[in-house]
Amino acid sequence: MKKFMNSAENFEKEMLEGILYSSSSYITSVREDNKSIVRQNNTEKKVGILTGGGSGHLPLFLGYVGEGLLDGVAVGDIFQSPSPKQIFEVIKSINTGKGVLSIIGNYGGDVMNFELANEMADFEDIENETIIVNDDVASNTKDNKEGRRGVAGLFFVYKTSGAAAKQGYDLQQVKNIALKTNENVRSMGVGLAPCTIPIKGKPSFEISDGQMELGIGIHGEPGTYRGPQKPAKEIVEEILQSIFNDLELAAGEEIAVLVNGLGATALEELYIVYKHVFEYSQGKNVSIYRNYIGEYATSMEMVGFSISVLRLDSELKNLIDEPHNTPFVRQF
Amino acid sequence: MKKFMNSAENFEKEMLEGILYSSSSYITSVREDNKSIVRQNNTEKKVGILTGGGSGHLPLFLGYVGEGLLDGVAVGDIFQSPSPKQIFEVIKSINTGKGVLSIIGNYGGDVMNFELANEMADFEDIENETIIVNDDVASNTKDNKEGRRGVAGLFFVYKTSGAAAKQGYDLQQVKNIALKTNENVRSMGVGLAPCTIPIKGKPSFEISDGQMELGIGIHGEPGTYRGPQKPAKEIVEEILQSIFNDLELAAGEEIAVLVNGLGATALEELYIVYKHVFEYSQGKNVSIYRNYIGEYATSMEMVGFSISVLRLDSELKNLIDEPHNTPFVRQF
Repeated sequence: MKKFMNSAENFEKEMLEGILYSSSSYITSVREDNKSIVRQNNTEKKVGILTGGGSGHLPLFLGYVGEGLLDGVAVGDIFQSPSPKQIFEVIKSINTGKGVLSIIGNYGGDVMNFELANEMADFEDIENETIIVNDDVASNTKDNKEGRRGVAGLFFVYKTSGAAAKQGYDLQQVKNIALKTNENVRSMGVGLAPCTIPIKGKPSFEISDGQMELGIGIHGEPGTYRGPQKPAKEIVEEILQSIFNDLELAAGEEIAVLVNGLGATALEELYIVYKHVFEYSQGKNVSIYRNYIGEYATSMEMVGFSISVLRLDSELKNLIDEPHNTPFVRQF
Repeated sequence: MKKFMNSAENFEKEMLEGILYSSSSYITSVREDNKSIVRQNNTEKKVGILTGGGSGHLPLFLGYVGEGLLDGVAVGDIFQSPSPKQIFEVIKSINTGKGVLSIIGNYGGDVMNFELANEMADFEDIENETIIVNDDVASNTKDNKEGRRGVAGLFFVYKTSGAAAKQGYDLQQVKNIALKTNENVRSMGVGLAPCTIPIKGKPSFEISDGQMELGIGIHGEPGTYRGPQKPAKEIVEEILQSIFNDLELAAGEEIAVLVNGLGATALEELYIVYKHVFEYSQGKNVSIYRNYIGEYATSMEMVGFSISVLRLDSELKNLIDEPHNTPFVRQF
């Protein structure tokens, strides 16, 4: 494996130690559990927000704990769900009496384990709500939006909900913002080469040189098209056509855009992608209010990218402008 | 090629358009020259700082133009130097009458072209100085430090010099900070797989599976050891032993550390690396005052990382704490 590691068994544990060592003034681990973290010195009385899922997607999930985003995260091993007990400990840690919102991607194991954790929270009278994000247009039809997977659009749901909680919204209001963001965000990815899960030691999927997989998921789930690699401009146009149609975006609307590298794609290429996103949007008379370009939801060292588009109104614009500050991402 | 692009001929041009589209409130191009950028709306009267070199290293060089770091950058094609004329236009654009400092890596073409550009600046009575950074311990012996290449340690020289200029230091004082930083910073890299330059269409070097190249340069220059891949802990210890010895770091000293991904290395692995950096430093009773982990000086999609260590004193600590804000990197 072309990876810097010591042993597959300790991969997640050692990664988490590195994160804790590097950011001890921001975050701390939960009860000696090296797979969950919460904000350090968080004394604000506000709605608590957590997320979780498998490791292997940095900055998702651990990188979003900090001011203006999340209060806690529970992760499992690479591409594995955290346990209900582990999630429940995070819920307890971040509850300040204002209730707690879980924001998770639509994956069976995560949905089930967060549900069980929230039942434990009910039992201790901690007010709690859960939002399941399903932004990946390639993973199911529009009629079955609830069946779609959650991918990089999670970032936008964290962003607006985190800002709302910071601004003092109550639990139902933060939940409504999360719902509204989820309703208005769409994503789609494309891959050229897989990643390798350390414990498995072989690629997550097979793809020949010169082929691309359009609509790929962040664990290498198959997409909607596999065929010869196309020029960047064509790929972007196909992705944005799907997203704009699905969102029914109209001329004159405003959006936020995330061009997300899946792990091993050069930053130079993400900017070529952004050039085409900008020009396509301009051609549709849709204006980009804010852009994010870089790695936000990876699949370890997969070669690929995704584009997420969030339709904005004045409320979401206000929230997206709020600063945030975590060890992995910062906005002034 | 497993790359998202349209044509090799337009790779750099389209990347730069993407950067300009995404960040038009921060930066602007110089005289329709899509290969040089300067800060937008920079009305501060302060020492101007520029850098430059080949494309293909994002966020180096273009990503560092912004508040608290650089005022202008001239880049060439992938791994190619910018032209003297192009550099001179940047010098003219960023000069506010307080003089201009060029900070560049030690590469023949860059050194020559910046020298010619600065001669043009002399001719127009623009006060100017140049610092050549040579932080790569693997590229030459300590006796021949001037012959060493400049790599990710450039970031620390930008950081302290940019902060000094922001705090009102004059040209000689900013130059002295740059010199002092260069004297106290060391770096070393390791690679597991090459990148591909679009126009060439084949890997920048050959390396078999299971082999590593220790001391590799950011263009794939050969290092000091090629052999079987070692565990992350051993690699980190070998790198830090070289760096700590070369710096003659003593117990009780304070450092800043940069763990830099070369392009295609998963963030998870960079944190495993940092864990060992932290523990090694702790073992030597050297404390890490500030850490930076992520992609700061890449070689497109090379698989590898580098570690840079900067020895700090109270002046450098003050400068390194100064906030910065560019489209690619932010510090509160």
